[in-house]
Amino acid sequence: MARSSLAPLLYADTGRSADQIYFSRVGVHDPFIAFGAGRKRLTVQSALEFGRVKKARTFDAVLPLEEWRERAQRRHPATKVGVAEIIAELARAHRLRGFRVPDEFPAGLLLKLRALGLRVEVADGPMFPEREIKTATEAAAIREGNRLSAVGFTVAEKILRTARIKGRSLVYQGKPLTSERLRFAIESAILAEGGRPDDTIVAGGDQACDPHERGFGPLRPHQLIIIDIFPRVVATGYFGDMTRTYLKGRASEAQRQLCATVKAAHGRAINAVRAGVDGRAVHQEVVATFDAAGYKTTHGKNGSTGFFHGTGHGLGLAVHEAPSLSARVSMPLKKGAVVTIEPGLYYPGLGGCRVEDVVQVTASGVKMLSRHPYDWEIR
Amino acid sequence: MARSSLAPLLYADTGRSADQIYFSRVGVHDPFIAFGAGRKRLTVQSALEFGRVKKARTFDAVLPLEEWRERAQRRHPATKVGVAEIIAELARAHRLRGFRVPDEFPAGLLLKLRALGLRVEVADGPMFPEREIKTATEAAAIREGNRLSAVGFTVAEKILRTARIKGRSLVYQGKPLTSERLRFAIESAILAEGGRPDDTIVAGGDQACDPHERGFGPLRPHQLIIIDIFPRVVATGYFGDMTRTYLKGRASEAQRQLCATVKAAHGRAINAVRAGVDGRAVHQEVVATFDAAGYKTTHGKNGSTGFFHGTGHGLGLAVHEAPSLSARVSMPLKKGAVVTIEPGLYYPGLGGCRVEDVVQVTASGVKMLSRHPYDWEIR
Repeated sequence: MARSSLAPLLYADTGRSADQIYFSRVGVHDPFIAFGAGRKRLTVQSALEFGRVKKARTFDAVLPLEEWRERAQRRHPATKVGVAEIIAELARAHRLRGFRVPDEFPAGLLLKLRALGLRVEVADGPMFPEREIKTATEAAAIREGNRLSAVGFTVAEKILRTARIKGRSLVYQGKPLTSERLRFAIESAILAEGGRPDDTIVAGGDQACDPHERGFGPLRPHQLIIIDIFPRVVATGYFGDMTRTYLKGRASEAQRQLCATVKAAHGRAINAVRAGVDGRAVHQEVVATFDAAGYKTTHGKNGSTGFFHGTGHGLGLAVHEAPSLSARVSMPLKKGAVVTIEPGLYYPGLGGCRVEDVVQVTASGVKMLSRHPYDWEIR
Repeated sequence: MARSSLAPLLYADTGRSADQIYFSRVGVHDPFIAFGAGRKRLTVQSALEFGRVKKARTFDAVLPLEEWRERAQRRHPATKVGVAEIIAELARAHRLRGFRVPDEFPAGLLLKLRALGLRVEVADGPMFPEREIKTATEAAAIREGNRLSAVGFTVAEKILRTARIKGRSLVYQGKPLTSERLRFAIESAILAEGGRPDDTIVAGGDQACDPHERGFGPLRPHQLIIIDIFPRVVATGYFGDMTRTYLKGRASEAQRQLCATVKAAHGRAINAVRAGVDGRAVHQEVVATFDAAGYKTTHGKNGSTGFFHGTGHGLGLAVHEAPSLSARVSMPLKKGAVVTIEPGLYYPGLGGCRVEDVVQVTASGVKMLSRHPYDWEIR
């Protein structure tokens, strides 16, 4: 199916759907109709949102939901009309024979639209493939997201530096330093600067060996602490996504070697990125680095150890989007794509280490969109 | 279709899908497969989440994604297998002839599953109707959400009380008090107590006449300020949702009458709630109160004025869920349902007023799940 043959249709809220915020450029908390007709972009909004969305001026026209519901009701006097009937009415009025919808379009609505006789096709691949290529404005918005992540690291480092080691505890401002307290300090600093932090990871010791464990309870001296911060910039909707690993106290030789190897893999992966290179080849650089240093990956009944996630993912209006840099997907990196590079190693008993930065793919290499030092041992 | 005839199937992340968090009871950031087989609840997780989800012990079994992808790949050696083929393989292994999915199930995945020969039916109405009736544990979680909202009001009141009026400005700690500063103070206090605030509304003057405008720029003395706080409790995923309206300075007679009328409507609506009463009848109490007091509702080209939203909505793992208390929907309230009661009036020039509390429906009336004073004039 040619891309342009059917008009785009979205029914989602902008908090949950990156396609919807990309198309609408104005935040709306509840699902709403947005569609294209010729070169115009239109939306239907209830009285609750109408004035605000109109003032945002991101659509060519904002249609009042109440009026269109009435029109649909007049055509179907016997049924209680819903979103599907309203969309059918809009299609009729705008002479649209059908719609192209994203993969995540609500299945129930798709079936109802088809039952009403509309042609509705699910986009084969991404709804807006251009989302993968970031403009200069988008790259700046992502850079701002990463600036907010860095604000978080700066706060965390200051607290870890100030904290005192007392036996197996870290004491900060007279109380044990926990994942929760450190997370709060990081997140409130990000909030103050216009970001919305979400599920920031502050995981120490073996907790960090489950890479998506947020972390809880007391942080311990001499243990690796993974901090992964991926705030959303409230003003634009774009995300930052960075990870640093720390240790308060004295690192063992094994911990130092682990961190040095992860950092080396991170550097080799970034060096391997440029337009046209396969994402899988970048991932293989990391795998090769870990192999050469003797770090094994195992998969057991109770989980995996070593390096068992992808090297990176696209970043933009979603934390995880195309493209992917992993063993499973063969996908040449496009010029202008923005991806994370985040190798990690995880061994219960020793702990986990992950380092993550964000780069934009250029013809000859990368432009760094994140910046923060890598000093990890805090005495 | 009988409810139990097909096994439930979900493919969503728990941040965006209330059904998924309801079924899974463990937070997972990326979409994943969860399904029922007989009396068991199963999920498939990648190595990234496997250990953590297993430790949460909310599923009868956690299956490794990598292994099931390999199984699906062996059956379809010629295709690059995806989520659909993995689900088909799971169905075969668990002898499931099909699945029941929620309305918001991804349309693309539904079509692929059907193309693979699976019977997939979209639930007619809510996927888990029992979500509407809150257990004592759920009511307590919502009460905690509202406690966090109230923490926000307490902070806001303290700041408004401390702020000084200088001409058309409010000055707090030497700088103009803005929506942004007040929102930050509210949200960081909520963050500190284990909540995740999102899009808190702090809108003064005419800004508040767009009910979902978050508010921006300087707050003015002698103007109504609507504060609507709906944080998520991080530990449980349940929401609070409360609104108070304030004014710093001296209220005019018109502002006083507006606020008194909204408060009266709020009280009459709460008094009208009990099991079996139609949500629409509760809404009509508000409409009648406003009518009797002479407050008109108008719909124009540039928006609406007066009372132009519903009186309330269900609250739980989503901010907006069933049931609805509005003009459009006739729906008897069920015992145990939890709903907001939030009448409001909005007139550009005069400003907006909304008061919102949360109640649980009982046989004889309501149990209040939110608590905070209504003192709104701050000198």
